[in-house]
Amino acid sequence: MRKTTIVEMLRNAGENFISGESIAGELGISRTAVWKHIQALRDSGYEILSRERRGYKLKDAPDLLLPSEIQIGLDTEIVGKEMNYYPSVDSTNRVAKKLAYHGAADGAIVVAEEQTGGKGRLDRNFFSPRGKGIWFSVILRPNFLPKDAPKCTLMAAVAVAEAMTRFKFKPEIKWPNDIMHDGRKLVGILTEMTGEIAKISYMVIGIGINVNISRDEFPEDLRGIATSLCEMNGGEELSRVYLLRAVLEEFDKFYREVTASGFDKVLARWKKYNFTLGKNVRVISASDGSFFTGKAIDLNHDGALVVETANGLQTVYAGDVSIRQT
Amino acid sequence: MRKTTIVEMLRNAGENFISGESIAGELGISRTAVWKHIQALRDSGYEILSRERRGYKLKDAPDLLLPSEIQIGLDTEIVGKEMNYYPSVDSTNRVAKKLAYHGAADGAIVVAEEQTGGKGRLDRNFFSPRGKGIWFSVILRPNFLPKDAPKCTLMAAVAVAEAMTRFKFKPEIKWPNDIMHDGRKLVGILTEMTGEIAKISYMVIGIGINVNISRDEFPEDLRGIATSLCEMNGGEELSRVYLLRAVLEEFDKFYREVTASGFDKVLARWKKYNFTLGKNVRVISASDGSFFTGKAIDLNHDGALVVETANGLQTVYAGDVSIRQT
Repeated sequence: MRKTTIVEMLRNAGENFISGESIAGELGISRTAVWKHIQALRDSGYEILSRERRGYKLKDAPDLLLPSEIQIGLDTEIVGKEMNYYPSVDSTNRVAKKLAYHGAADGAIVVAEEQTGGKGRLDRNFFSPRGKGIWFSVILRPNFLPKDAPKCTLMAAVAVAEAMTRFKFKPEIKWPNDIMHDGRKLVGILTEMTGEIAKISYMVIGIGINVNISRDEFPEDLRGIATSLCEMNGGEELSRVYLLRAVLEEFDKFYREVTASGFDKVLARWKKYNFTLGKNVRVISASDGSFFTGKAIDLNHDGALVVETANGLQTVYAGDVSIRQT
Repeated sequence: MRKTTIVEMLRNAGENFISGESIAGELGISRTAVWKHIQALRDSGYEILSRERRGYKLKDAPDLLLPSEIQIGLDTEIVGKEMNYYPSVDSTNRVAKKLAYHGAADGAIVVAEEQTGGKGRLDRNFFSPRGKGIWFSVILRPNFLPKDAPKCTLMAAVAVAEAMTRFKFKPEIKWPNDIMHDGRKLVGILTEMTGEIAKISYMVIGIGINVNISRDEFPEDLRGIATSLCEMNGGEELSRVYLLRAVLEEFDKFYREVTASGFDKVLARWKKYNFTLGKNVRVISASDGSFFTGKAIDLNHDGALVVETANGLQTVYAGDVSIRQT
């Protein structure tokens, strides 16, 4: 708790030094305690100048996704109010499911600097190197039925797309929830759910955003199919802190929207960002690997993809869709 | 393993005694070991006579749901091949979810003589006294999508209804899956699921059948709303072993049917047993407690109840339905 407050005081002081005495007074602790907290912040990567008789000044804050950084000025009502931060985890979804099982609140998030065993859909691996992306999971306890859960995965994609738009990117969503650029993947989303037929116990939505991964940092087999914001941005790095805050705010806004009024708005926004509809696609079944081709013509009210084939309309609830270059 | 075999040998001998020597010879163990196994069976409740020079004879087998009893002659391909038996558990669904998480096979079952914290839908309690009913859970790992999971709960109800029919009962299913007699509940089913949007990781279907609970054994608050097979049967007790075997066989048959060919047959069978369609009903929402009334006119292809109301058709995916006596 105190870390947040000292960081806030340092930030508010801007270019000015702030004395250890005034920090101590404000927080009701000793000057020695202030010094210890400053040391802890430095250990976390904060660059803090200290001058005798003048006090402390924040020179540089690390681009770490620390709760103290993310939650300052975070404008949400549900999402991210409870934040669990880890330098390294095997998978944020796995940690989030465990926390959810033990009662973590609606909107609680799990954020990690790296995932050593990050997962995509259907047990695929998800590359999640330290400090280079945003790897996090949101725990939801919505009051709608399990049958509406698939639409939450579209909602998550829309929230990330809107956040990226704030930073002048033009994201494109491939059905159902991959965010792409030039045919390569920028963001992956994995939604998991546990519940009864009549009630969702909890959902965990894992989101992986490739932020500052340069082309040669991707493993060779991913270079042709993955990209990052930094790469889209001509190699210039982005602040993960600002981007995550924006994603949480958009997620929070849409989550409250669907809880109150259903998914109509989200599905409409999804269509705005989609680049699947109107295209010729190949759909590979998730269950048996069979496939068919056709033209993606609509998103139905369940968020399923409607594909026009030679044998009539097919409604796709789950599967891998690839755009055909014809 | 040996217990099963000794019991089988005793059963096969029928009214005859079988010598310790021939049991020992058949199993390749010492006569002392045979005697120890016989003692263990007696401790489980088997009544076994022993006569010098003649050997052993099975006088009475307990009505315990022991794997050795259930699996003898059980005609299934998937369901019940792995059987986990407990004298007492808090909830068979809880145990089954834990086993499923750790990799239990498709069709594995958890059976208990009593549940100390048995659960119905929406965290309601389920009365499960020792030795008086069949309290068990089936773990499924189907290859269909999560959106098809609700139909499995109808499938479970149909399987139990068919098994009861073998014993000359005339079960009635109240949508979605309660089995009733004279407006009182005979069987409760709780379906839980964990998975991704595109893939069920596992389902656990908990089934509680009130078998030999007499009227005055029910807690007072349940007497008006619950009943048992024994009560329907004029107070005569039934063999839980035979009934559970029949339920597992029917469940196995329908599970293989839906996996191979979808839910059409199950939904048709459900309609045969249903006593909801054609009735005036009150539907109470699972999420917010609101309700409406109308006439239940159909089951749609998702297994949802279609209700004709003054304001048009309503499709009910989850909720409590009560039949109105008008």
